[in-house]
Amino acid sequence: MILAEGYSGDPHWAKTMNGVLRYGQDEVVAILDSTRVGEQERGVPIVGDVASVLPFRPEAALVGVATVGGRFPPSWRELLRECILQGIGIDNGLHEFIEDDPELATLAAASGATLRDLRRPPAGLEVATGANLDVPGDIVLTVGSDCAIGKMTVSLELAREAEERGISARFVPTGQTGIAIAGWGISVDAVVADFIAGAAEQLVIEGGRRGGDLLLVEGQGSLSHPGYSGVTLGLIHGAAPHAFVLCHMAGATEIDGYPGHPLLPLAELVELHERVSLPCRRASVACIALNTSNLDDHGARAAVAAAEAETGLVADDPRRFGSSRLLDALIEHLACLPGRR
Amino acid sequence: MILAEGYSGDPHWAKTMNGVLRYGQDEVVAILDSTRVGEQERGVPIVGDVASVLPFRPEAALVGVATVGGRFPPSWRELLRECILQGIGIDNGLHEFIEDDPELATLAAASGATLRDLRRPPAGLEVATGANLDVPGDIVLTVGSDCAIGKMTVSLELAREAEERGISARFVPTGQTGIAIAGWGISVDAVVADFIAGAAEQLVIEGGRRGGDLLLVEGQGSLSHPGYSGVTLGLIHGAAPHAFVLCHMAGATEIDGYPGHPLLPLAELVELHERVSLPCRRASVACIALNTSNLDDHGARAAVAAAEAETGLVADDPRRFGSSRLLDALIEHLACLPGRR
Repeated sequence: MILAEGYSGDPHWAKTMNGVLRYGQDEVVAILDSTRVGEQERGVPIVGDVASVLPFRPEAALVGVATVGGRFPPSWRELLRECILQGIGIDNGLHEFIEDDPELATLAAASGATLRDLRRPPAGLEVATGANLDVPGDIVLTVGSDCAIGKMTVSLELAREAEERGISARFVPTGQTGIAIAGWGISVDAVVADFIAGAAEQLVIEGGRRGGDLLLVEGQGSLSHPGYSGVTLGLIHGAAPHAFVLCHMAGATEIDGYPGHPLLPLAELVELHERVSLPCRRASVACIALNTSNLDDHGARAAVAAAEAETGLVADDPRRFGSSRLLDALIEHLACLPGRR
Repeated sequence: MILAEGYSGDPHWAKTMNGVLRYGQDEVVAILDSTRVGEQERGVPIVGDVASVLPFRPEAALVGVATVGGRFPPSWRELLRECILQGIGIDNGLHEFIEDDPELATLAAASGATLRDLRRPPAGLEVATGANLDVPGDIVLTVGSDCAIGKMTVSLELAREAEERGISARFVPTGQTGIAIAGWGISVDAVVADFIAGAAEQLVIEGGRRGGDLLLVEGQGSLSHPGYSGVTLGLIHGAAPHAFVLCHMAGATEIDGYPGHPLLPLAELVELHERVSLPCRRASVACIALNTSNLDDHGARAAVAAAEAETGLVADDPRRFGSSRLLDALIEHLACLPGRR
């Protein structure tokens, strides 16, 4: 089951829920949100309380929302308590760790429920060493003009499209939703700041170990985000990508939640990413992935055409129109990298 | 006393020791380094064991070294134990927290020694909010081509020079050495990655609260550092500076400890810092602070002239030749900012 009390209808805050519904490997039996009882999301029924989920026999409850600062809304505490009392484990991706909560941990020990903090960094993280440069295969990182506009989705869609074409591709998760979907990964925004690049380096090394000629690394934040840019740049240097896919919410002009903080124009973002890439592994933007979910088909096509005209790169909305053109552009871009083939 | 076993002669690894000897407010009675017994650093005697320090009646032992990844060399454990047994408290700036070490904490409780982890983040950090833009006064951040080349020193020297001219200036510490010197601050490299900019924002707000028309914020890392760049960019966006001072080790061409990772040319770094600054508060480099400690006077003057020719900005080595020209250039730069005066 997925806990999304009060947020299941909000594409921004419910991004963990939506990601798992769309790409997750485990069956989702119910969504809990008392403000939308009786509705559905992708065929999954929405219920109003924990008692209504029990007939579905859920094994675990995934915290399906993101919050600013990663803390629980106070009203959620009772919800977590009820799940645990029923023996339902909690998979939590917020910064606030439930394994460390004395009351919840005691309840869980009594009921046998398992508490899992998806964002808890593994022990033994280190500063990046440069071993990222030795990972075999091509590394592609999604980057963006803002947070929560679909970087993970684009990585997953490109990986799926590549697999369908017989290319050995692997999605590399760097955040709580990606971890909930893929079952491994490190939430790079939750590690000690000095170890961001080191964690990203470990992830591409692990991705290489798991096999894959094409690693599609989930991006985080934005280079020009006033709150999260540090994570973005550390991830860029630690993942050491050969190419970027630049994601953008069509029509957006300001950083979400930061009035007065303008987005950089797409053409400037394309150039900026190339300039901040590792001097010993320069990377540039291969194509533009637009999120046109707030436009009709006509508007979406116009936005795609405008992005192509502005940047001179292939642009498309992979969720709306498929990933084929973006993957073509990416493969061509990688094939033309000096010294790669 | 300062613990610098094995490292007191190394300007890189002993940077906390050197910073506190040069700028600290507390008296240093001895340095412990068994490899240099009988020598001195800035008039402070170097001794070989804890017993030899006891006549000086030290109140606390400061861990005076930095290590890659911030962990203790294994041989140090016995040293820490001996200090604590003698009732000498430990001020520790490494990532490895001694307050959390069961054995050391038990010993300290018994002997009455106080353990302090300078790098431990304060509780309640949050994502940056944009409140940094409302801090009164001018904010100046030191940035650099690499780590450990003197960014903190330059901030301290500029603050001292400004105070001597009657300008109300305040040094804003962002790392363990700065905290050991100034007695307040947050080690921004030790916070959860999502909160780097938020911690930096808190620091400039606190700097403003403590008074000061000119806040000189200690920089960290480098935008092109393969390990620490995330901290650098988060600090840039969270501190929201009006201007940068770019620090560089004269003659260096590679990131220290990362063979094959070239430094960016100074002129490119100047442009890059301006381009990554917050779009709603563009900042540019006001002047270049060179570290010429590996050159003779003639070589130092030539390096200063070359940096000025390359960038078109005033350059100088504030430790060697004084901070006067750099502060002049900085004040002129700030006075010319649009909308500031």
